[in-house]
Amino acid sequence: MTHSRTPAYDELARAWSRMHHLGHLQSIAGWDRATHMPPRGNEARAAAMAEMAALLHRMRTDPALRERLQRAEDEPLDAVARANLREMQREWRLANVLPESLVQRQQLAASRCEHAWRSQRPANDWPGFVANFRAVLALAREEAARLADAGGLAKYDALMDRFEPGMTCARLDLVFGDLRRWLPDLVQRVRARQAAEPVLAPQGPFALARQRQLCEQVMRRLGFDFDAGRLDVSTHPFCGGVPEDVRMTTRFREDDFLGALTGTIHETGHGRYEQNLPRAWLGQPVALARSMALHESQSLAFEMQLGCHPGFVAQLAPLLDEAFGAQPAFAPHNLHRLLTRVAPGPIRVDADEVTYPAHIILRYEIERPLVEGEIEPEDVPALWDAKMQELLGIDTRGNFKDGPLQDVHWPESLFGYFPCYTLGAMYAAQWFAAMRQAMPDLDERIARGDLAAVFDWLQANIWSQGSRWSTDELAVRASGEGLNPAHLEAHLKARYLG
Amino acid sequence: MTHSRTPAYDELARAWSRMHHLGHLQSIAGWDRATHMPPRGNEARAAAMAEMAALLHRMRTDPALRERLQRAEDEPLDAVARANLREMQREWRLANVLPESLVQRQQLAASRCEHAWRSQRPANDWPGFVANFRAVLALAREEAARLADAGGLAKYDALMDRFEPGMTCARLDLVFGDLRRWLPDLVQRVRARQAAEPVLAPQGPFALARQRQLCEQVMRRLGFDFDAGRLDVSTHPFCGGVPEDVRMTTRFREDDFLGALTGTIHETGHGRYEQNLPRAWLGQPVALARSMALHESQSLAFEMQLGCHPGFVAQLAPLLDEAFGAQPAFAPHNLHRLLTRVAPGPIRVDADEVTYPAHIILRYEIERPLVEGEIEPEDVPALWDAKMQELLGIDTRGNFKDGPLQDVHWPESLFGYFPCYTLGAMYAAQWFAAMRQAMPDLDERIARGDLAAVFDWLQANIWSQGSRWSTDELAVRASGEGLNPAHLEAHLKARYLG
Repeated sequence: MTHSRTPAYDELARAWSRMHHLGHLQSIAGWDRATHMPPRGNEARAAAMAEMAALLHRMRTDPALRERLQRAEDEPLDAVARANLREMQREWRLANVLPESLVQRQQLAASRCEHAWRSQRPANDWPGFVANFRAVLALAREEAARLADAGGLAKYDALMDRFEPGMTCARLDLVFGDLRRWLPDLVQRVRARQAAEPVLAPQGPFALARQRQLCEQVMRRLGFDFDAGRLDVSTHPFCGGVPEDVRMTTRFREDDFLGALTGTIHETGHGRYEQNLPRAWLGQPVALARSMALHESQSLAFEMQLGCHPGFVAQLAPLLDEAFGAQPAFAPHNLHRLLTRVAPGPIRVDADEVTYPAHIILRYEIERPLVEGEIEPEDVPALWDAKMQELLGIDTRGNFKDGPLQDVHWPESLFGYFPCYTLGAMYAAQWFAAMRQAMPDLDERIARGDLAAVFDWLQANIWSQGSRWSTDELAVRASGEGLNPAHLEAHLKARYLG
Repeated sequence: MTHSRTPAYDELARAWSRMHHLGHLQSIAGWDRATHMPPRGNEARAAAMAEMAALLHRMRTDPALRERLQRAEDEPLDAVARANLREMQREWRLANVLPESLVQRQQLAASRCEHAWRSQRPANDWPGFVANFRAVLALAREEAARLADAGGLAKYDALMDRFEPGMTCARLDLVFGDLRRWLPDLVQRVRARQAAEPVLAPQGPFALARQRQLCEQVMRRLGFDFDAGRLDVSTHPFCGGVPEDVRMTTRFREDDFLGALTGTIHETGHGRYEQNLPRAWLGQPVALARSMALHESQSLAFEMQLGCHPGFVAQLAPLLDEAFGAQPAFAPHNLHRLLTRVAPGPIRVDADEVTYPAHIILRYEIERPLVEGEIEPEDVPALWDAKMQELLGIDTRGNFKDGPLQDVHWPESLFGYFPCYTLGAMYAAQWFAAMRQAMPDLDERIARGDLAAVFDWLQANIWSQGSRWSTDELAVRASGEGLNPAHLEAHLKARYLG
């Protein structure tokens, strides 16, 4: 046996490998809780998962790691190990910057606020919500200040950096500012155009077993590996499990199959990213998905870029005939109209591809001054109403439950996450633009069911790269440029006004 | 806050509570592996579970525990805490007695032997099996010697003690010797009697969804709490999960529903024991099931004592009509004959209630001298054949695959476990004898579907007691006497010759 020239790095890699293994059990237990666990199992499960979370936190903040991380800096690491060390240092910094007492107070405040929110939302009780939310916000401001201090970042940047490393408000203001300029007008133009287009609604009921078969069939066509993953049912669809065993979920309604189908296509994008992360580095941070916006770029590449592509929709049509019996609504052109219908509404999660970014811009423009202390919770409703009017022409006054009470993010103290959704949509459009540049016949390929071109490109440029590069480096290597919102604009205009 | 008068004990209780929480995740991951995991997830799962096993082993052998276990001895503990400390000491002793290198060599040898056995069994390849088994046996002998040394026990006693604390060969020779005297004759008499009784076979196919509904219906009738447990499908049925969330499995065949049904009734006995362990002590060793024989006494109380009781069988009949449509074979007296048919055969897991103990005696009489070094693997087939002839009148010469190759126990180095099956059958008969003593109308109650009497007795005398008492103490408190094989004899003679 030769003597290792990188002993500190080797020890670090072993520590992360141990955390990966233990995290595997935590992931599967989390999936089970959402999909199979009987109700009375909840208390014991919560205690077990809290024990594991505490253990993983202790491992991640082990004082011995600090010195090893420093020593490893001077070891002769290859490029991948160097990138891995960068990601380790990032995890270590994030795990150590917040005192445990703050984390505990945050969990307590968020848990209280979220629990009350579940009944306050249906009751439209904004003042009741604010009473709890004030504590959540105060602690989030403290968290932002500490993260900012440790990372040398502005406060909101520091919150965002946890999900989207390197993203800053300065940059976001540019790309969202651009979006803001053309989006309201685009929505109006698409609405006017679609007003003249009749759409047939599918006629239910749609047997749940058939919906499930259909979803699995589409997942197979999209390359999901059922030998290394599953599809199950949960109240809130998610993509969980581990890269080696991806656990996707969806939910079925008898009167509508489109929600489950498009939701499944969306999660399949997340699933394939996870299933195709670089195996050689598995267990190390460098093998993890790059960021939340990158993850969302995969789900939206599947759901929007590919799933609503007229060539792909034409292939879905016969599958629907087969699953539910032929209906006029399943004709390809009608199905495509159904999937691309634009209708401004108050609810983010129900929004179509065109109006969705407006919901994100609004939240960003409110939560940023909120955590930076420039506005207070009392100021939120008026801002919300004004921005909904301005961006989507909707009157939301007095309707808190479909307004600032609609998302779980704020009660759960999840600030800085919302932008990732629209950044993901932008990257998805950018990847498809790059694919078209490399393969001018891409649309014909998709139309004849040859999806390998899409998957091979994503595999080579995104999935196999894990966290090898920064998001910017990854984008440049994949598409020749950093984040460029012009691709989303071009995509929407081509699809909806072309 | 008052100062604890039992600081060492309190620390021990916290340590065991942590192990209970982490063990929860391990149990759920094990259940998932057997029921839901896709095939390519196996490698990562094995690594994750091995990591957790190593972690739990480190926690269980933490040197700090030794001194605390000693100090706790002198603390003013109440009776339950004292019993808990006894169980902690036992776990600590078992975890520490074997050097890790031996455990690793055993796992390696067993894994190699078991893997090869999977193809050697169908190939009837006894010499090939022996080539691997020799290493397994050598290590088991070393294990037995070390366990015996540490516990002041004979070698086979020390192996048995891991599953059935306090059981010894001296005692087993008495009870099995008794059984040996009357069993072969009983089998012959029952056979002669049943030869004149015609039995109708149920006519399949039996839709799997209906079988599943039927099993769940019977589990509900047997008091299984579906708010704190589930029924799923696995290749080898088991009862897993945790006391707070019991995961039972069964398997279905379209041409036979009786296997799934009786298997489910069996596992429900295990399941109710787990679901009703004492909640107040949960997370501590004293709250665990008493022993393997006691566990088996619950599954056999459900499957044999209750499940084959004519009064219970009469209530099953209409459920079968409902599930599969009426058939003459479902008539109560025919169903009872089906469930109590005695037929000597070579395979243990297919054996009926009467011939089953013969399979156990045979294995005990072979594996004991084997681990004690009195015989060698070469001697096994001749002994096997002679004992099968003697006990059940069956010729097994040359048929290794349905002979000494049939069980996974020996390739997996599981020596000392087999006796628990028949000890369980004896205890189950003893519990029902005690119930009849306390409730002379027990059989009428069962016949009119009033099963609460049975469950209340088991709850009060077995389930709620966890590991509060030694097995002997528990038996005496429950039934007025220690293990008494006369109850099994009386039960079998009453049911099969009465």
